[in-house]
Amino acid sequence: MTVAQRDFWELANDKWRQNKFVCVGLDFGTQLPIPLYSVLQEQGLGAAFMHFARAIVAATGDVVGAYKINSAFYEAHGTEGISALRRIIRSIHEWYPTIPVILDAKRGDIAFTNERYAQYAFGFLGADAITVHPYMGQESLAPFLGRSNKGVFVLCRTTGDGADEFQGAVNDDNPLYVRVAARVAEHWNKNQNCGLVVGATNPHAIRRVREVAPDIPLLIPGVGAQGGDVLDAVSAAHSATERTFFVSASRSIVFASFMDDFAGRARQRTLALHEQIQARG
Amino acid sequence: MTVAQRDFWELANDKWRQNKFVCVGLDFGTQLPIPLYSVLQEQGLGAAFMHFARAIVAATGDVVGAYKINSAFYEAHGTEGISALRRIIRSIHEWYPTIPVILDAKRGDIAFTNERYAQYAFGFLGADAITVHPYMGQESLAPFLGRSNKGVFVLCRTTGDGADEFQGAVNDDNPLYVRVAARVAEHWNKNQNCGLVVGATNPHAIRRVREVAPDIPLLIPGVGAQGGDVLDAVSAAHSATERTFFVSASRSIVFASFMDDFAGRARQRTLALHEQIQARG
Repeated sequence: MTVAQRDFWELANDKWRQNKFVCVGLDFGTQLPIPLYSVLQEQGLGAAFMHFARAIVAATGDVVGAYKINSAFYEAHGTEGISALRRIIRSIHEWYPTIPVILDAKRGDIAFTNERYAQYAFGFLGADAITVHPYMGQESLAPFLGRSNKGVFVLCRTTGDGADEFQGAVNDDNPLYVRVAARVAEHWNKNQNCGLVVGATNPHAIRRVREVAPDIPLLIPGVGAQGGDVLDAVSAAHSATERTFFVSASRSIVFASFMDDFAGRARQRTLALHEQIQARG
Repeated sequence: MTVAQRDFWELANDKWRQNKFVCVGLDFGTQLPIPLYSVLQEQGLGAAFMHFARAIVAATGDVVGAYKINSAFYEAHGTEGISALRRIIRSIHEWYPTIPVILDAKRGDIAFTNERYAQYAFGFLGADAITVHPYMGQESLAPFLGRSNKGVFVLCRTTGDGADEFQGAVNDDNPLYVRVAARVAEHWNKNQNCGLVVGATNPHAIRRVREVAPDIPLLIPGVGAQGGDVLDAVSAAHSATERTFFVSASRSIVFASFMDDFAGRARQRTLALHEQIQARG
């Protein structure tokens, strides 16, 4: 199956039907497990990233619902990192053709320019979905929203300090992030290809989002290293009708160990997160 | 002078003192002048981009105050385009060491991740300034805001249809974009390295921004292909004390002609924009 033939939503829905809600973030680039040092020395950074990805995917692919890759960690290493990013995404398509890959790129420009980011994300890199900034509005995002086989996850209530500075600004009794969720649910989702990014660190926000966007799939980062509580987040994310969300963890899984057991420990952490989600299910 | 030694604000202030306010956007990638077809065929895309950039910079460098390069047009072409982007930025530093280069990348993630985007923009690519999304708040942008020799242009009131969807959302009598401008002016600019992006297509918005952020330098896109009126925009951008803004045009300059005269026509358009700004000055 070529990248163009892949349908993010078919793949995601299949995973959700199989009760697979964990999304592992393959965000390398700041650290490497010690067993990969020799690969780095002998074959370079790109090869070390590929080995890392292959080991993590082999250890977690039967458990996860999706992989998420943040472009920043690869772009920081220039073209060598970006080549590795491309190889990793396309390799996951080969290793596990049924697992969707979300490029966490947080892009957002005018429409004319977003068409080029879509070419980068879906054409060059081969991702199945992307995260985008809402600030420039629906019409600017047309090149993403118009691709019905791709996932377009709109930043709504993000994790991290400072997120509330604008997202919490109240307008007609609603904070901005609720307005974003409502606009996406009511106006942006004509091709049924929108999702919302709502951090696990704020279950109250997930509940508010679910009130105005009951059927929009959620991407929930912030468990693990960022400290969000899984049970609270998952309880809030349940929609009335069906469970359509990914709970995403990155550093807490891929950096679970830096020793020979790094892949095994990543699997343990992934399974633990999977089971926490099932427990609430 | 190495990239690390360059100071965006020293360079920009020098240009403003010389009454140079035009910023030319080197956004290739969608079209090429016909004389560059043979370069494309014989030496590849990266070489064609470099030839294009060299010709435009040679024809406009004595007039402009800054160059702006939008990452999307290069990333769309994958690592070949990104290599060219790096070469172009670093070549401008050599050809015209006094001209600052703004990477229009519109990035924005959590702080941990933004550190990697800063490495990409300033380390790998060698840019002097970057554009960023405000949606995730001040604390998320610390890796940019903490680099005092770099320019951090925060998206405020953007061009293009749909920009008002959230930017115009009113909170305490102020639309969101005014709140962004006020926060940047009052809280984010501790290192005196912030700017605001306010589109020429909305002079009223520029005036509102100037009311709350009288001293923050502006990057004003949207003249030329996007139709903003230069005189209105420049009148609105004048601050009480000094003129600190760049008026940016891309397609209307670099695609002024596709024939042998493309560089000369780019120079004419750049001079015309320069003179329009002086006329108001």
